[in-house]
Amino acid sequence: MNSAILLLSCRDKKGIVAKISDFIYRHKGNIEHADQHIDGETLFMRIQWALNKFDIADEKIILTLKPLIDEFKMEAALHFTKDLPRVGILVSRHVHCLYDLLLRHQEGQFKCTIPLIISNHQEARKIADYFSIKFVHAKSEVQAAAELKKENIEIAVLARYMQILSSKFVKKYKNRIINIHHSFLPAFAGGNPYEQAYAKGVKIIGATSHYVTAKLDDGPIIEQNTVRISHRDTLDDLKRKGKDLEKLVLSRALRWHLERKILVYSNKTVIFD
Amino acid sequence: MNSAILLLSCRDKKGIVAKISDFIYRHKGNIEHADQHIDGETLFMRIQWALNKFDIADEKIILTLKPLIDEFKMEAALHFTKDLPRVGILVSRHVHCLYDLLLRHQEGQFKCTIPLIISNHQEARKIADYFSIKFVHAKSEVQAAAELKKENIEIAVLARYMQILSSKFVKKYKNRIINIHHSFLPAFAGGNPYEQAYAKGVKIIGATSHYVTAKLDDGPIIEQNTVRISHRDTLDDLKRKGKDLEKLVLSRALRWHLERKILVYSNKTVIFD
Amino acid sequence: MNSAILLLSCRDKKGIVAKISDFIYRHKGNIEHADQHIDGETLFMRIQWALNKFDIADEKIILTLKPLIDEFKMEAALHFTKDLPRVGILVSRHVHCLYDLLLRHQEGQFKCTIPLIISNHQEARKIADYFSIKFVHAKSEVQAAAELKKENIEIAVLARYMQILSSKFVKKYKNRIINIHHSFLPAFAGGNPYEQAYAKGVKIIGATSHYVTAKLDDGPIIEQNTVRISHRDTLDDLKRKGKDLEKLVLSRALRWHLERKILVYSNKTVIFD
Amino acid sequence: MNSAILLLSCRDKKGIVAKISDFIYRHKGNIEHADQHIDGETLFMRIQWALNKFDIADEKIILTLKPLIDEFKMEAALHFTKDLPRVGILVSRHVHCLYDLLLRHQEGQFKCTIPLIISNHQEARKIADYFSIKFVHAKSEVQAAAELKKENIEIAVLARYMQILSSKFVKKYKNRIINIHHSFLPAFAGGNPYEQAYAKGVKIIGATSHYVTAKLDDGPIIEQNTVRISHRDTLDDLKRKGKDLEKLVLSRALRWHLERKILVYSNKTVIFD
Repeated sequence: MNSAILLLSCRDKKGIVAKISDFIYRHKGNIEHADQHIDGETLFMRIQWALNKFDIADEKIILTLKPLIDEFKMEAALHFTKDLPRVGILVSRHVHCLYDLLLRHQEGQFKCTIPLIISNHQEARKIADYFSIKFVHAKSEVQAAAELKKENIEIAVLARYMQILSSKFVKKYKNRIINIHHSFLPAFAGGNPYEQAYAKGVKIIGATSHYVTAKLDDGPIIEQNTVRISHRDTLDDLKRKGKDLEKLVLSRALRWHLERKILVYSNKTVIFD
Repeated sequence: MNSAILLLSCRDKKGIVAKISDFIYRHKGNIEHADQHIDGETLFMRIQWALNKFDIADEKIILTLKPLIDEFKMEAALHFTKDLPRVGILVSRHVHCLYDLLLRHQEGQFKCTIPLIISNHQEARKIADYFSIKFVHAKSEVQAAAELKKENIEIAVLARYMQILSSKFVKKYKNRIINIHHSFLPAFAGGNPYEQAYAKGVKIIGATSHYVTAKLDDGPIIEQNTVRISHRDTLDDLKRKGKDLEKLVLSRALRWHLERKILVYSNKTVIFD
Repeated sequence: MNSAILLLSCRDKKGIVAKISDFIYRHKGNIEHADQHIDGETLFMRIQWALNKFDIADEKIILTLKPLIDEFKMEAALHFTKDLPRVGILVSRHVHCLYDLLLRHQEGQFKCTIPLIISNHQEARKIADYFSIKFVHAKSEVQAAAELKKENIEIAVLARYMQILSSKFVKKYKNRIINIHHSFLPAFAGGNPYEQAYAKGVKIIGATSHYVTAKLDDGPIIEQNTVRISHRDTLDDLKRKGKDLEKLVLSRALRWHLERKILVYSNKTVIFD
Repeated sequence: MNSAILLLSCRDKKGIVAKISDFIYRHKGNIEHADQHIDGETLFMRIQWALNKFDIADEKIILTLKPLIDEFKMEAALHFTKDLPRVGILVSRHVHCLYDLLLRHQEGQFKCTIPLIISNHQEARKIADYFSIKFVHAKSEVQAAAELKKENIEIAVLARYMQILSSKFVKKYKNRIINIHHSFLPAFAGGNPYEQAYAKGVKIIGATSHYVTAKLDDGPIIEQNTVRISHRDTLDDLKRKGKDLEKLVLSRALRWHLERKILVYSNKTVIFD
């Protein structure tokens, strides 16, 4: 069963919802989900409809929508649930998020394929083998970029990848690189966030997944979660508790991205969950 | 600024969203919020639109919608944001929820008036005075029912009201009596839930707000919340921690009800938050 | 029933716990609670014992402990549960925390008296009257300080007091001024934290209670709590949700302080809860 | 570095803490952690001390403590941190908890060895191979019991093991079988808890780990956790969200058990975390 997902944003005006709904109805689509959000004067919308009786061929839908898109000056993206995006995972030494993503993928939680794991270390090689995924030991960003291109990767997940990416690289994958930062951003950006949190004496720690932008740990936040700690927790306890947050937060962000539930605007996200 | 809120549920069919949206658009309404949910074959919808340029008079909207309602065999309810429902609060000896509701009302969190407080005890009298609300000491359900009727109360909130209501009373206010039960239902229904939780040795306690039905502590759940406890917490600690949950949970339930965000079906709720 | 509470910290050495326990036992005290924590080389201890059969008079206990305190170079403080500290509350325009503290006090959650409310505004006057507490409208810090002194206030609670205190004032009440900051510190210190959080697009907001030091919003953190938000939450929703956090967090901090459960060290806190 | 951990419970009397502390001090032990809890008239205590300079040999400590144990009629258990208990995992078809436990073990979170995985299905065989652990396909309880005995297993973890154990089996491993139940007990005991929760329309789901007793899903609760759901969550969403809870809750319970932090009394637990 294939469905279409239309993500759009534009200046809010009367009749947009009516016209989009009517377009789908007239062409025999059945709306499965419809969400909208208005932020000030901007309308955000996600609408998903079944295509089994839809009378426009998949590849012609966006063209047929063109007049509507132009009339309301929409930014629009169309996706199909039958398509499985190709996801590449980049990882350094800490492999807990990598394992977590691969096990969730195995359970069917992610609508994607994962054909590639890149690392600047060797720890992940054995894991890639177990899950029958190509492993590439890339020491430089140039090498990593070449592999992503070669494997036609649409989405890059930084699953505790301890390398800063160049703005050139980031631009190429705008809103398509998902990072996990092991703090409750904007607190404790940069290196060693658990050490920073421990020194500060906070009573709660967090993790944050966000799209990567040129500015370090500053891109649009997709998801965050927190857990309570106490003076009894050592730095190692913080790291252990934090790992569980990182896994939850990163996997949610990837799932929402794959289900086309995220819209980015002014360095923030709308999540139509 | 007045807006209309239409709550509806019906068997899901193609074109419902389109036809409702189109109705609003053609009559010059501007959609402010639209939420829908499909549960199996049933469609639930909440749609809110500005009335400032709408070309149908408030009192004629439901009539004009009649053909659509009939076509899709909808259950529909129409509300206006300018209307302030009259809320009555029933309370026994524990007054923390009462205080909480009145202070939130004073802060503007609830779109309603609160003209009446009924109690089978005297503790709340002083509070009613402070907030300039009529207080009635009602010893029987018959007396309470008469007061609610006399004051034209639309919604009754049981803010720790330790009296079981007759099914006759409950029927008259179907989905309009909101109760707070001080446990995580369905665990620990009935009397002394904190004592039950303490004896069982649970590690988390909860509170539940629900619409009252003829069956005790079994109506459609509106909201729940939980808090962690440990062996160090005495029964008094459970009661103290639980009070904070009760306040949060009951006030949310009332707010959602007043904002017409709740739809009830098969003893469950859809909350369009 | 009176009990003694001894709070101490010192360099960890063999025999401290044994010697303290033995002291209490020999003098016919019955230990009710004992907590200890070791952070690196520092030992922190809180020990509470019943005094009903204790064979040293209250006022002589600390003297009798002197040799032990000197032997281990302890920092030690002795409190008695029968003593009710005098707490003063300072507040500006937002009165939700003030109401919350006074209602909790009325319920018996705080072991203290509250003889004084100081404000640079008039909103709290009516509240002070309702709870029969002296209200002082103090426009300057000098005036506020004079009132605190006059009323012999031991602990000052800043319940949304929008005034920066001088370092002279702060020094006089070292670890005795408790503030509530309406963000998850160290994120969004300073003014307008909800506005900052909204602009940043975080998915969780928080509140922090801490002892006030000369550096703004930087003192030892006592308690924090967080709540999930989404893109649907307006700035007003953040403020409303945040208020509930502020109340929970500030009241917990005050309760722990009054129960002598907090030890401060290197700008952090040990909470023996 | 080896340490001793003494877990004890007895009727509370003056001098117990002092005498235990003194015993350790006199024999040149250094107390690393000491926790106590008084529930009514019962004292619970966990005390851990370094053995590097202790002047009693490990195997003679319990004997030397005998007079104290007898004097206060203590239930006492002595453990050594150098000992690694042998843990066996029993699992059926759902392998997420199994993976989670093995990965945490690999990360060093559990102080034990895991020499055996038993299943009434074949799904876990490949996983056992990957982690180089003996796998036994046991169709009957008799067969499982024989394997546990043969492998000298001290602690059995039911990581979603869908078989009811006989009371004979349970007695043999009293407070040594840890189960994960996929609901917030006591709500939704028995089969299909997610289906029950979905039908009831609860707004929060949970998971519970507990020691197994002869009565189904009724043993002493070790740990619980909850997560918020909404009407938008399908039954599959509940199961997916629940899996994350199950992993967190079961792994915590096992860790606390291995660190000898749990005391059981009157079907409840004291957790000295």
